Amino acid sequence: MVPSLSSPTMERTIGIGLLGAGTVGGTLVRRLVGESDAIAAKTGLRFDVRRIGVRDVARVRDFEVTEGLLTTDPFEVVRDPTVDLVVEVMGGLEPAGDLLLAALRSGKPVVTANKELIAARGPELIEAAEIAGVPLLFEASVGGGIPIIRPLSETLAGEPLHRVLGIVNGTTNYILTAMTEDGTSYAEALGDAKDLGYAEPDPTADVSGSDAAAKAAILASLAFGTWVGRDDVYVEGIEGVTATDIAFAAEFGYVIKLLAVGERTSAGVSARVHPAMIPADHPLASIRGATNAIFIVGPSVGSLLFSGPGAGGDPTATAVLGDVIDAAREMLAGAQVAPRIRFSPGELASFEDMSTRWYVRLVVDDQPGVLAQIASAFGEEHVSIRSVWQEGVDSEASLIIVTHAAAESEQRAAVARLAAIEAVRDVAAVIRVLEDDA
Amino acid sequence: MVPSLSSPTMERTIGIGLLGAGTVGGTLVRRLVGESDAIAAKTGLRFDVRRIGVRDVARVRDFEVTEGLLTTDPFEVVRDPTVDLVVEVMGGLEPAGDLLLAALRSGKPVVTANKELIAARGPELIEAAEIAGVPLLFEASVGGGIPIIRPLSETLAGEPLHRVLGIVNGTTNYILTAMTEDGTSYAEALGDAKDLGYAEPDPTADVSGSDAAAKAAILASLAFGTWVGRDDVYVEGIEGVTATDIAFAAEFGYVIKLLAVGERTSAGVSARVHPAMIPADHPLASIRGATNAIFIVGPSVGSLLFSGPGAGGDPTATAVLGDVIDAAREMLAGAQVAPRIRFSPGELASFEDMSTRWYVRLVVDDQPGVLAQIASAFGEEHVSIRSVWQEGVDSEASLIIVTHAAAESEQRAAVARLAAIEAVRDVAAVIRVLEDDA
Repeated sequence: MVPSLSSPTMERTIGIGLLGAGTVGGTLVRRLVGESDAIAAKTGLRFDVRRIGVRDVARVRDFEVTEGLLTTDPFEVVRDPTVDLVVEVMGGLEPAGDLLLAALRSGKPVVTANKELIAARGPELIEAAEIAGVPLLFEASVGGGIPIIRPLSETLAGEPLHRVLGIVNGTTNYILTAMTEDGTSYAEALGDAKDLGYAEPDPTADVSGSDAAAKAAILASLAFGTWVGRDDVYVEGIEGVTATDIAFAAEFGYVIKLLAVGERTSAGVSARVHPAMIPADHPLASIRGATNAIFIVGPSVGSLLFSGPGAGGDPTATAVLGDVIDAAREMLAGAQVAPRIRFSPGELASFEDMSTRWYVRLVVDDQPGVLAQIASAFGEEHVSIRSVWQEGVDSEASLIIVTHAAAESEQRAAVARLAAIEAVRDVAAVIRVLEDDA
Repeated sequence: MVPSLSSPTMERTIGIGLLGAGTVGGTLVRRLVGESDAIAAKTGLRFDVRRIGVRDVARVRDFEVTEGLLTTDPFEVVRDPTVDLVVEVMGGLEPAGDLLLAALRSGKPVVTANKELIAARGPELIEAAEIAGVPLLFEASVGGGIPIIRPLSETLAGEPLHRVLGIVNGTTNYILTAMTEDGTSYAEALGDAKDLGYAEPDPTADVSGSDAAAKAAILASLAFGTWVGRDDVYVEGIEGVTATDIAFAAEFGYVIKLLAVGERTSAGVSARVHPAMIPADHPLASIRGATNAIFIVGPSVGSLLFSGPGAGGDPTATAVLGDVIDAAREMLAGAQVAPRIRFSPGELASFEDMSTRWYVRLVVDDQPGVLAQIASAFGEEHVSIRSVWQEGVDSEASLIIVTHAAAESEQRAAVARLAAIEAVRDVAAVIRVLEDDA
């Protein structure tokens, strides 16, 4: 039985204005043209790209360029009366922010892949969309082609989530995977990642955690319904992660990952990005290479994992295209659509109060009484030791301490005390340890 | 910075009519009451459960029952003028189907968790919703709390997917995991699953693949935009899976899972459910116990994995609640909403043409010339052998053959030839082998 469900209602055509025609934008145009029939069959919608804002009109494009399609004035795209819906894939804070505000204020739905902009000016843009009664969708801003924004803001809207963990930067996960599996140094793994195109020539935004921080802000905001801005996110990159600590982690049954962490505790909501040791059997531990994954925990829904390619023109264009179809569908409803999610004022937890377990690696003189001094340094700051592991080489020893849960402020005070002990030559590493319960 | 985004627009209250108050229904009512403030803060919506259709009004409930809330006539719930939105968690084909049609035809949005009903009467219900211009949402019908329906029908609406693989039945995955990890027999693992509450006293719907088949039909229909009905799904259960074949699979680097498979090939679209060997490093191979997972492959988006608890009152209620919020939001738009997905007539591929690799285990007399006879039986049906593995015990031997890709019809003809060979005592197992490329 093949029931015919082709709807009696006619096809609708939507005029698209595109801001930016780089990798994602170019892919999107080619797919809107090439898959036009398939999309129309599945959704009843046809999309016509009517105006594209670009930096260089003369550049050779891998899609057909008709007379007047390209313009170097992006505001022309937004103002064009034949443009019903604006898609922004140009990136950056300005002029993207003003362009999207202008589009929303003139009643045009907006689809954007711009994580920096949403993380920085989300509340303002969402409010403009709400006032205009048009959709503002940004599925592609986190996790590339992985559907995560819609599940968080719709399917899980009724769930009081308490934790979101994400591997949301492919470059750093590629580097850490190489260091873990091949035992290479950070510098070597970064060099390989550049050679293979997994890292930009200037990898700062990725390795410093900055890219992941914008995504952490968006994930936490949607998960908890309280806006967490980009500037509220504590960020630590992977530059200090060593092959030594990755090897020690493996011995203790842990894997080091750069995590975006969103949490709601009694102190409030928070978002942060930092390297963390997670148990080797945690679902995120097996996410290899440039793959992204988001792990969500809620009291009713349990643990959910979403994984897939987190970047690249094709997967990102798929997410943008899904939003374009959805926004067009809402637009055709022809009425004020209730917002998907509202943000309530809420407490942001202070980073100083964040509590995790800690891995601390010390290089010490191998002499009697050192361990007692170290133990009392922790004890004086109320940091309780969970396990100690010692590896001696001649008169020098590596001392690995894993603590019970302790606040950032306590850990810092303890580390200051450790550094002041004469027999402690170096506090070589301090890394957070995340487990399901702490 | 904690921007205040609490909207100036007032809260809206939606009257809910509930059909069924079992595990999921009861949980839903408790959450709608208990989390009312949190939901209102996040969505601007308040839900008031106004009427509940139940089998037994006298039964003790774990939620507050006010005068007139319960009725044994479910049509009263649908007709109640104070009910704005109907939620169906009673299950079964009738009267659920007629109730939902009545609700949709009277312009009330419908949220349902009923996989059998959607798989059996999806086209009719979707058409009724489309004509009435109201949403019909069924996120909870597949994968419990895992958001999968919305990603497939919205985020991935623009992606010409070619394959969906799912572990969508927790009971059978629990049994197969126990057999794999503990080496227990099927009967023993099933007994344990019953004792622990992972299997029903009558587990037929689960172990026969019937439950998974309804979900396979829904997944394939949404992924490909061509309706695949429940009766179009080829189904094979796990009753014939033995500890012996699980052990052999492990030796060859495979794991046996009960898979829901949706495919689009040049022959058309198809859905099927059967045990399959998948490589031990496939993302679905590590899905243990009662967890569900769906693996989606598209030409642009790459491979996506969604996993989480696939059943249970709490996760399922989360999915229903997300749909309720979404349906209410659309309803408040107060206008005809374009359908999420349309189904076009399309070819359904014949099951006989489905092509996979095959694992065949034979018990043979260990005598010269047997292998040649077996090889020629495969050869005469154009089934090409990929590897052969022999394990002898006295005069009897187990012969394990893995073939290259061959159609169902070819494999069956080859097996008939094998069974006719005198030295072949038993064709002990025939199991499909799925790899990324075949």
